[in-house]
Amino acid sequence: MVQLQRIAIAPEQLQNEYLSLTAEQQHYLGRVLRLKQGDRFIIIQGQWWIAELIVNLPASSPQAKLIEKVSIQTELPIEVILIVALPKADGFEEIVRCCTELGVTQFIPVISKRTVLKPSPQKVERWRKIAREAAEQSERLIIPNIFDPVSFQIGLEKNDHSCDQYICEGRGNYPSLTQELIPLAAEKRLNKIILATGPEGGWTEEEIHRGIAVGFQPISLGKRILRAVTAPIVAVSQIVGIIES
Amino acid sequence: MVQLQRIAIAPEQLQNEYLSLTAEQQHYLGRVLRLKQGDRFIIIQGQWWIAELIVNLPASSPQAKLIEKVSIQTELPIEVILIVALPKADGFEEIVRCCTELGVTQFIPVISKRTVLKPSPQKVERWRKIAREAAEQSERLIIPNIFDPVSFQIGLEKNDHSCDQYICEGRGNYPSLTQELIPLAAEKRLNKIILATGPEGGWTEEEIHRGIAVGFQPISLGKRILRAVTAPIVAVSQIVGIIES
Repeated sequence: MVQLQRIAIAPEQLQNEYLSLTAEQQHYLGRVLRLKQGDRFIIIQGQWWIAELIVNLPASSPQAKLIEKVSIQTELPIEVILIVALPKADGFEEIVRCCTELGVTQFIPVISKRTVLKPSPQKVERWRKIAREAAEQSERLIIPNIFDPVSFQIGLEKNDHSCDQYICEGRGNYPSLTQELIPLAAEKRLNKIILATGPEGGWTEEEIHRGIAVGFQPISLGKRILRAVTAPIVAVSQIVGIIES
Repeated sequence: MVQLQRIAIAPEQLQNEYLSLTAEQQHYLGRVLRLKQGDRFIIIQGQWWIAELIVNLPASSPQAKLIEKVSIQTELPIEVILIVALPKADGFEEIVRCCTELGVTQFIPVISKRTVLKPSPQKVERWRKIAREAAEQSERLIIPNIFDPVSFQIGLEKNDHSCDQYICEGRGNYPSLTQELIPLAAEKRLNKIILATGPEGGWTEEEIHRGIAVGFQPISLGKRILRAVTAPIVAVSQIVGIIES
């Protein structure tokens, strides 16, 4: 099963048990992988399905048929939402790739006081492509949602606050994330986590206070100073370790 | 204090309270940072010292003088040794950078059955440079040691086995690393951890068995399939979360 090629599709590509492929997907399956009529592959859309390629039909007809569900459970048992103050250059690509592998469900890229990057719409599309590829590669059932970049304040307001919310801070004497999570996990009190990580140079004091005002708890990821790219990967790794253990 | 520039030096550069700088370090401090006679910077060698630049002396004289120790504790309380089957392309650079930030003390790059990379001596020098820079940036007291690449078998034999040893495996139903570590940490039974992660395509079954034969315990890092570059960063993040919590 694992040898079959996996592709992630959008919900609107499915009509009953039939599937419309995008031109890019048709090219990939037909020209790159050289799949033929009746060859099988896996589609990812909330869960996995085995699908069979249909060729030589008018362009308006569906290009594949769903055959059967594949039973697989690779999603985290809770939602993990990441608010990331965009790091310099291509740093957010690395964050999206690794944190999608780790099971993050939503990314909210934000522009904080010390954020330097001004991302173009092409950049945002590229992040979504990386998330799709990382979801396929890591055998996930869903592709995490990547929001358009917003201000830190709007990012903070994007979710209701009835869950565990943490803001990572490199300096200052805060409790460690793991220390906070272990008792909550033991009592099965975790159902959704929102985590915020800062840019190069960190959050401003005012930003930390704005986070605290809406229920974020400042936490530490250890005694060393992590790069803006490393911090979210470390935090999500620790969350995954606790909630899947 | 934190604003002073930090540079990592080798033990042999110190003679009593005097310091010889390499040509590269002299260039960096004098030409790039434009420090002058008497300007201060921090040197990292087992701990932090404030040093003062000495200029306009014959080339054979020391180029800096130690002024005072800086009290800082950023090292992990236990040794963490990473055996990494080299991933493709520049993947190991990312591992060295992030895992140095996280506090790893030794890297043992190994060539396993499915390793593709044939690293040149220049590559190894580049890894050491990245470790030095990451140690400076993350405010560590030591620079982790990076061994020359060896075969997986020799890598396994590089340490005595009187400590906790884990081999990460993406497939198979193994206990999670965090699940293993939490009770050991609670009983304060952790003093040194050796962790091995595989290349693209994973370890062979024979390699897993060779690890088990010398006391490695197979563990899982979660239900999703992580890239060879992501796995060691995730594992070390989880270790750090537990031992510093």
